[in-house]
Amino acid sequence: MSQPSQHLSAAHFAPFLHAFRRHSPLVHCMTNEVVQNFTANVLLALNASPAMVIDAGEAAEFSRFADALLINVGTLTRERQQAMQAAVTAAREAGTPWTLDPVAVGALTLRSDFCQQLLSQEPAVIRGNASEILALAKQASGGRGVDTLHQADAALDAARQLATTWRTLVIVSGEVDYATDGTRIVALRGGSPLMTRVVGTGCALSAVVAGFSSLPGDRLLNVAAACQVMSSAGERAASQAAAPGSFATAFVDALWTLEAQHETH
Amino acid sequence: MSQPSQHLSAAHFAPFLHAFRRHSPLVHCMTNEVVQNFTANVLLALNASPAMVIDAGEAAEFSRFADALLINVGTLTRERQQAMQAAVTAAREAGTPWTLDPVAVGALTLRSDFCQQLLSQEPAVIRGNASEILALAKQASGGRGVDTLHQADAALDAARQLATTWRTLVIVSGEVDYATDGTRIVALRGGSPLMTRVVGTGCALSAVVAGFSSLPGDRLLNVAAACQVMSSAGERAASQAAAPGSFATAFVDALWTLEAQHETH
Amino acid sequence: MSQPSQHLSAAHFAPFLHAFRRHSPLVHCMTNEVVQNFTANVLLALNASPAMVIDAGEAAEFSRFADALLINVGTLTRERQQAMQAAVTAAREAGTPWTLDPVAVGALTLRSDFCQQLLSQEPAVIRGNASEILALAKQASGGRGVDTLHQADAALDAARQLATTWRTLVIVSGEVDYATDGTRIVALRGGSPLMTRVVGTGCALSAVVAGFSSLPGDRLLNVAAACQVMSSAGERAASQAAAPGSFATAFVDALWTLEAQHETH
Repeated sequence: MSQPSQHLSAAHFAPFLHAFRRHSPLVHCMTNEVVQNFTANVLLALNASPAMVIDAGEAAEFSRFADALLINVGTLTRERQQAMQAAVTAAREAGTPWTLDPVAVGALTLRSDFCQQLLSQEPAVIRGNASEILALAKQASGGRGVDTLHQADAALDAARQLATTWRTLVIVSGEVDYATDGTRIVALRGGSPLMTRVVGTGCALSAVVAGFSSLPGDRLLNVAAACQVMSSAGERAASQAAAPGSFATAFVDALWTLEAQHETH
Repeated sequence: MSQPSQHLSAAHFAPFLHAFRRHSPLVHCMTNEVVQNFTANVLLALNASPAMVIDAGEAAEFSRFADALLINVGTLTRERQQAMQAAVTAAREAGTPWTLDPVAVGALTLRSDFCQQLLSQEPAVIRGNASEILALAKQASGGRGVDTLHQADAALDAARQLATTWRTLVIVSGEVDYATDGTRIVALRGGSPLMTRVVGTGCALSAVVAGFSSLPGDRLLNVAAACQVMSSAGERAASQAAAPGSFATAFVDALWTLEAQHETH
Repeated sequence: MSQPSQHLSAAHFAPFLHAFRRHSPLVHCMTNEVVQNFTANVLLALNASPAMVIDAGEAAEFSRFADALLINVGTLTRERQQAMQAAVTAAREAGTPWTLDPVAVGALTLRSDFCQQLLSQEPAVIRGNASEILALAKQASGGRGVDTLHQADAALDAARQLATTWRTLVIVSGEVDYATDGTRIVALRGGSPLMTRVVGTGCALSAVVAGFSSLPGDRLLNVAAACQVMSSAGERAASQAAAPGSFATAFVDALWTLEAQHETH
């Protein structure tokens, strides 16, 4: 099995977070209906600028001047698929990096076919749980939906293969998160089990990853820092709240206050 | 007027809640755009697994392996109606119980026609407020939308008639909730007026009812327990919060902690 | 540059808020997917009755018995545009006042064309940020999306021109909010910078404005009071919370408790 070559600790992400807040990326989120509000609030709490534009024509226009594009297939429809495709095509023409969140790929036909089509369209990053990454690499048939049936490390070889084949970065989320470019592997520990009891923490991570992918510098380290920021906020929230309602509030607050001593804005 | 034959008190729902958390039903929610996030968080706080799949083809696929299906017509469109119909057909073929939440039926044409069509398609449960149940039974023309103009007990005879005619269970929500199979009537007291000041508490109840309908045992008692769980969470939240923003947070927290002493997970 | 002719202070809005809560307007919100839940909860916390009806046929039916209609183009699609047009037509026939929130107008083609078409259809109120009002008046090309690039006072002349040309009221939101009928200008101070870190505060303001536009009396003062209510809630929330997650909760709570001593319900 692949072994992580690097560990990123909490001490390392502060400069990345500082850069993210300073750049305040405009993130075009084409994401599922369930998590749009939470995703926007997570990005706002990190001083980024979210925008959800979904008509095919407008999405293509918008992808050209956004800093990053997120494609999340959680509530895919044929109409939404066409709009996402238009946005990806425009993003590639404009050089806007785009991130794929293949929610429940493998389990359902429309999204599985679409995600396979998207692989060859130069995603900057793919972020999923172990079942999704295994299904995307055609090494498993997918879970019963959004929940993973596998531990993250079980998908590490599939992640490396996807990254190498499609020349992209792959993040496998779980108790430990892994980020890989096919050669290097960064392992990220932390987070809280309560994150799995608030809908959209994974989807919002993908939006934050999309934003970090637009920063200058080593993209693998940038997106790994995105995972660490979210995990650290989860840990801080778990130290303040013991149930998912108040945890969700504390999580957004933690994104705002995290390492605030490093900020000058 | 019909008289309740049974009262379920807070002391009675603990074993039902325990079974629900242990089974962790996968609930396929085809619900309105306004409440998808809250509905998912309510189910997650009860240790269930929510999934919102909305494309017609995918919804049919998903209904086959979900434990329960919810159809809520709150933001119905013709496209969404087709997807819901496909899901209901697939659910019936697979034996997946499905629950109908006829939001604002009677007041608006598209949803009124669709709900009447759905009645003959073997819903396991119908959950609405008094105006909706009266409109569904064609005993009233419906309210001005989502708000009820009637007390729950005014709809009790309509509920019994619907349950008998369509061999289903009917829940009428209000200050007192009633659940009936046409013969037996369970009355459930409790809750808080603040629940009417947070959007989606009724819609989320229908999702929880759908989940409880998939448990083994007496379905009438199972879905009555769902009402009692939500009412008890509302009471607990009202003891901790006096305004709707903090009440909503406390409500989700209460679902997580309710009778936690009975849990071993 | 135009000068405000009136200032409305916190002491002035209490009777307006009292009237709003007493009338409890039924507000038909055709708004973007991101903010539907928050918008509904804001209206509920002010004792109004929100309803999101989106099918073209149902939206036309519903606009006839709603007290007010909101059109927000934030996640416009061609299908949603048709439904909005049907609702506006029905609202005009029924005399239901309707409010336009031209989110990101100028930056994107579909919504820009639609908003220009809507100008001649007798909106009761238009509510936007400075960039949106300038773009609507064709005095600027719009921002990069939802964020304004201009201070509110920079759009004051554009607001007066729009109000005069289309015989409507225009609200320009910013650190200072302005409401004008083309002749009179009301300036409203207050609010909190944290309001810009919670998605939907502007969109929810438009929904509240729509509700206030349905009250008897001087419509300019009514909608100005709507701005003052939201700003005052923002100030109160900022005195209780220092980060956006808990701020959002406190904001909804503040709407519920604001000037509660004046209420008898």
